[in-house]
Amino acid sequence: MVKYNFKDDYSEGCHPNILKKLSETNFDQQDGYGDDEYSREAKELIKKLIEKEKAEIYFVSGGTQANLVIISSVLRSHESVISVSTGHIASHEAGAIEATGHKINSVDSPDGKLRVDDICKVLKEHELVPHMVKPKLVYISDSTEMGTIYKKEDLKELSDYCKNNDLYLFIDGARLGPAISSIENDITLKDIAELTDIFYIGGTKNGALLGEAIVIINKKLKEDFAFHIKQRGGLMSKGRVAGIQFLELFKNDLFFQLATHADKMAQKIKTGLEEAGYSFLTDSPTNLILPVLPDKLIKEMQKIYGFHMWGNFDDNRSTIRLITSWATKEEAVEEFISDLLSFNIY
Amino acid sequence: MVKYNFKDDYSEGCHPNILKKLSETNFDQQDGYGDDEYSREAKELIKKLIEKEKAEIYFVSGGTQANLVIISSVLRSHESVISVSTGHIASHEAGAIEATGHKINSVDSPDGKLRVDDICKVLKEHELVPHMVKPKLVYISDSTEMGTIYKKEDLKELSDYCKNNDLYLFIDGARLGPAISSIENDITLKDIAELTDIFYIGGTKNGALLGEAIVIINKKLKEDFAFHIKQRGGLMSKGRVAGIQFLELFKNDLFFQLATHADKMAQKIKTGLEEAGYSFLTDSPTNLILPVLPDKLIKEMQKIYGFHMWGNFDDNRSTIRLITSWATKEEAVEEFISDLLSFNIY
Amino acid sequence: MVKYNFKDDYSEGCHPNILKKLSETNFDQQDGYGDDEYSREAKELIKKLIEKEKAEIYFVSGGTQANLVIISSVLRSHESVISVSTGHIASHEAGAIEATGHKINSVDSPDGKLRVDDICKVLKEHELVPHMVKPKLVYISDSTEMGTIYKKEDLKELSDYCKNNDLYLFIDGARLGPAISSIENDITLKDIAELTDIFYIGGTKNGALLGEAIVIINKKLKEDFAFHIKQRGGLMSKGRVAGIQFLELFKNDLFFQLATHADKMAQKIKTGLEEAGYSFLTDSPTNLILPVLPDKLIKEMQKIYGFHMWGNFDDNRSTIRLITSWATKEEAVEEFISDLLSFNIY
Amino acid sequence: MVKYNFKDDYSEGCHPNILKKLSETNFDQQDGYGDDEYSREAKELIKKLIEKEKAEIYFVSGGTQANLVIISSVLRSHESVISVSTGHIASHEAGAIEATGHKINSVDSPDGKLRVDDICKVLKEHELVPHMVKPKLVYISDSTEMGTIYKKEDLKELSDYCKNNDLYLFIDGARLGPAISSIENDITLKDIAELTDIFYIGGTKNGALLGEAIVIINKKLKEDFAFHIKQRGGLMSKGRVAGIQFLELFKNDLFFQLATHADKMAQKIKTGLEEAGYSFLTDSPTNLILPVLPDKLIKEMQKIYGFHMWGNFDDNRSTIRLITSWATKEEAVEEFISDLLSFNIY
Repeated sequence: MVKYNFKDDYSEGCHPNILKKLSETNFDQQDGYGDDEYSREAKELIKKLIEKEKAEIYFVSGGTQANLVIISSVLRSHESVISVSTGHIASHEAGAIEATGHKINSVDSPDGKLRVDDICKVLKEHELVPHMVKPKLVYISDSTEMGTIYKKEDLKELSDYCKNNDLYLFIDGARLGPAISSIENDITLKDIAELTDIFYIGGTKNGALLGEAIVIINKKLKEDFAFHIKQRGGLMSKGRVAGIQFLELFKNDLFFQLATHADKMAQKIKTGLEEAGYSFLTDSPTNLILPVLPDKLIKEMQKIYGFHMWGNFDDNRSTIRLITSWATKEEAVEEFISDLLSFNIY
Repeated sequence: MVKYNFKDDYSEGCHPNILKKLSETNFDQQDGYGDDEYSREAKELIKKLIEKEKAEIYFVSGGTQANLVIISSVLRSHESVISVSTGHIASHEAGAIEATGHKINSVDSPDGKLRVDDICKVLKEHELVPHMVKPKLVYISDSTEMGTIYKKEDLKELSDYCKNNDLYLFIDGARLGPAISSIENDITLKDIAELTDIFYIGGTKNGALLGEAIVIINKKLKEDFAFHIKQRGGLMSKGRVAGIQFLELFKNDLFFQLATHADKMAQKIKTGLEEAGYSFLTDSPTNLILPVLPDKLIKEMQKIYGFHMWGNFDDNRSTIRLITSWATKEEAVEEFISDLLSFNIY
Repeated sequence: MVKYNFKDDYSEGCHPNILKKLSETNFDQQDGYGDDEYSREAKELIKKLIEKEKAEIYFVSGGTQANLVIISSVLRSHESVISVSTGHIASHEAGAIEATGHKINSVDSPDGKLRVDDICKVLKEHELVPHMVKPKLVYISDSTEMGTIYKKEDLKELSDYCKNNDLYLFIDGARLGPAISSIENDITLKDIAELTDIFYIGGTKNGALLGEAIVIINKKLKEDFAFHIKQRGGLMSKGRVAGIQFLELFKNDLFFQLATHADKMAQKIKTGLEEAGYSFLTDSPTNLILPVLPDKLIKEMQKIYGFHMWGNFDDNRSTIRLITSWATKEEAVEEFISDLLSFNIY
Repeated sequence: MVKYNFKDDYSEGCHPNILKKLSETNFDQQDGYGDDEYSREAKELIKKLIEKEKAEIYFVSGGTQANLVIISSVLRSHESVISVSTGHIASHEAGAIEATGHKINSVDSPDGKLRVDDICKVLKEHELVPHMVKPKLVYISDSTEMGTIYKKEDLKELSDYCKNNDLYLFIDGARLGPAISSIENDITLKDIAELTDIFYIGGTKNGALLGEAIVIINKKLKEDFAFHIKQRGGLMSKGRVAGIQFLELFKNDLFFQLATHADKMAQKIKTGLEEAGYSFLTDSPTNLILPVLPDKLIKEMQKIYGFHMWGNFDDNRSTIRLITSWATKEEAVEEFISDLLSFNIY
């Protein structure tokens, strides 16, 4: 048994407010499939926040489900989606997108971010009609799988390029909370709603029991969307369960408070390790950091803490992945730093 | 606003024990994706109940998801699944099975039950190799979408026929609780594990917030099953949430108690209406009943109660669907009967 | 060895004009993938015939391929296609349509023809959004799998209904030649182009080595169609081969002459059998007829002729399927009738 | 109009023997779907050549079709196929493989050949079960898209590795003729049958009108294969057409003679250009060569010859793709070389 787990941001249950609301409303009879009053209220809160009255919002239970429902709904069978190779859809969804019939055009990226040049290159390589797929959707994650975030300028460039090239832009926001709550962030949910065609806001990794809120901005992508959720097994009978998660998260800014805490905890570790002279694979301002540590040190730390390996760095060092969450205790973070430094291995 | 809702068995939240356990365990750190201790405990409880130590058990969030994961995992692309035309996969899953590439061979059935003769007929119609799909899986629901149940003899016949004809047998148990808790039932979970290749036990419709427990008996069907859950978006990050549902349901027989209550409530309505001279589309011993009522009476009742229409019966009468649940209040049932009789319409 | 084969309309090679043209052009260098001059010429001939300059035409090698490319191109994943249950896509394509992810809503029809009432019923049964697929495409065959044909009035009614209900209309014309060349026919290729959104003209069953000509009328269905042919494996490198088939078939009305001969041969058998008192399952005016014959007579005839069984009719009689073609010899037809009558079994 | 076309190996019709046989057999009645006597004879010839009496052989019309039928037949939905990124399935099939639900794990290769190290790396990257696809099939082309070939030692290494790692090995032989007829080749069709689980022999690019012969060696992969051909639209009604192609190609070694001629023609150009000091992107011994030429020279040659561009090489030079075939005239080749040299651009 390890002292503490930095494996992910879903090791604990959920924020107590959610459990409280589940209890309070438990015996109210509600319609199923998202037609309950809590889901309706939660959707109104989100629409106000993004200032898009006409947005359509749906709740599904997890990130892979959100990704596969969105992508298979948006694309015709000959169309493809562009992603960095570390993107969740490209690397950690067991072929979920391909199982719906679509190719992922994946491009390498040192920091997990996709850039206009990457998209441009993919388009150029796919000019031989009709022998190749037609790239039609751009998939990015904010924050990325490497902890980095998109600045407003980044997003604006991607958005403009997509508009000019007849591509849709989609943000996987499984960790959107930590992204927009990070100290370096300069975009709001409203900006995101302005600059993308469709995105989702992650609940599972930011204090909910489960749930991702899919937000559809582009009118073309709204048509018949609900069918796709049902067809892919994502329509919850007790839609109230997901509705209550987002109702509580977006009442009184809880969503942002939880993410801010998660970010602070990781950044505290980051500062501690930087001060001790350790470096990082990416310059992450969020709750996911990638320290590069001596293999000997990693071996010792694995005995007392839980975390995942990211990969080899050089002959003597590897990168590890540390994730903090809304539930991470500050004492655990402090103890982690002090334990690590105590080994005195560089 | 209606007085009371008999639309479905997922109008309320969940049994309070589940909420209590969610609260008690909320801050325990657990591994994700079903590797938490509650999921492990719950699986052990189920294995003991079915007396199959080698069964593999997985939890997913809903019935359509369970159906599509199971069917797409079991079948090769040229193979099909046989179902009655009222089967959930054939009628109410927005083409989920076809979206994974498989044809459903659907056969009509007056009471929602599939019989050996139906299967036999399908096989005979599909002899023109390779111009037709190859039926390979038999899908039944217990209880059925029409409230009826399979007796041990029924299941034994289906099981024998499947074994002799190189077919797999799968039970959709979204309402398995109400089925095996009904007064007419003569089969146990252990019998089901003996007679089928794969089945699932429904939590969502029997007192859980969400969750279906997939039980794989046939060794051939176990290989790589987890990949399919992930690929179809059914792998919950916080697997603990589903684990806790089944842990509570199968601790102290809560699962059976809840189902027994649900059945009793519907049977009380059934008896009340039968005594008043109304008939039913099927002879259901479970929590879903299909009374045939004068259209005028239905119109009145719709003003004060929530329920779904099943279809026209004759020029003046239609069938309605009433569903009770673990949470249905006996007073509501009594009031429903008395309100209905008070209209004095036959 | 049987004397003669009435199993199908693809037992022989192709009309000699096609072989001649293949030889004459054999060493001309041509671009691949349908960009050859013969394909271009053939397409111009067809466009003139249907009087639609803006139609888009593509050649693929077979009927199942044409069906699956068209249907998967036209539909989004939650949309379905309506067909009679004897329709080729519903019964004899090994689940090809479902393998592209789409449900077929099949309806029974005594004569293989689909009617407005059938479509209307399907739409009514699919009102529970989003729990069911969304019917979007109507598939009919002319002539049908039972030899019957659509009259202009039939087609007009279907076309109007589809337009008014936001449905696309598609004709599988694998046997369009025999249909529009039949004595009872009152529609032209031009009518078909007016009344449908997409259709194909069968070459394989009307004198070509292989090839179906897909004709797209509706502008919305033209976009990116070529990608779908390529993606489903239907794009021939040597597109010239298919182009030459249709060039020869539509030069000098060969297509219609061949179909007229095929029809005449079957109608001759039909008349012969009717005069002898035998009946037919459908009243077919085309090259596919379904005589109902005593089982004893069938047994004798199977020894000397090749044909397929359609099914049991009553305790002593069954329906057989006889198909004639462009290549059927009149003497063979006469001998068949005289042999049959000689058994004197009624 | 250009003088001569080196764009591909399918610019002409077919070897005259095939047209002759088509004519001679034109009016013989034969069963459809590959049950004709020419297909049977052709299959026997191939089985003898590979010395595998139990091999199962099927003819389909083209390469993309062969690839998608084979891969979707072999893999379960969570399994993937490994290919070099220039592999036909990865780059030029419009997402055909993904459309059947499978991910392609693509790896870069400088010469178009896949090596054991590449496979090993893919397996290592896919250890996180069940979050990633499971690589199960290795796809290689011989000759490759870059003209290179596999030597016996290469193939042996791949075969051994696959056997030891529970992977299937599949050769796309669209250009298998030119590969095994090349001067550097040291493998036979028999070797290929020994070392792979499944492969196909290309007819379309080696003198046939159309047709690829799929050869299944591994018993596990034979089961129900025919269904998959039908389901994907690849089952030809007039199977005789494909059967006749392979009957003629494998009678009297025509297949090898045609390929040898194709190779010789390209090698003649290669020698001519090498002597003049030009280099090549790969060291190809087959009928597809990739000369690196000054952009100015390419511009001149494009005015008088047809060929495709492969890509930029450096600031002043690009790679072009020249393909010769069974039908390429030696004079055309000589003229090409002499025209090219006459520009005197280096």
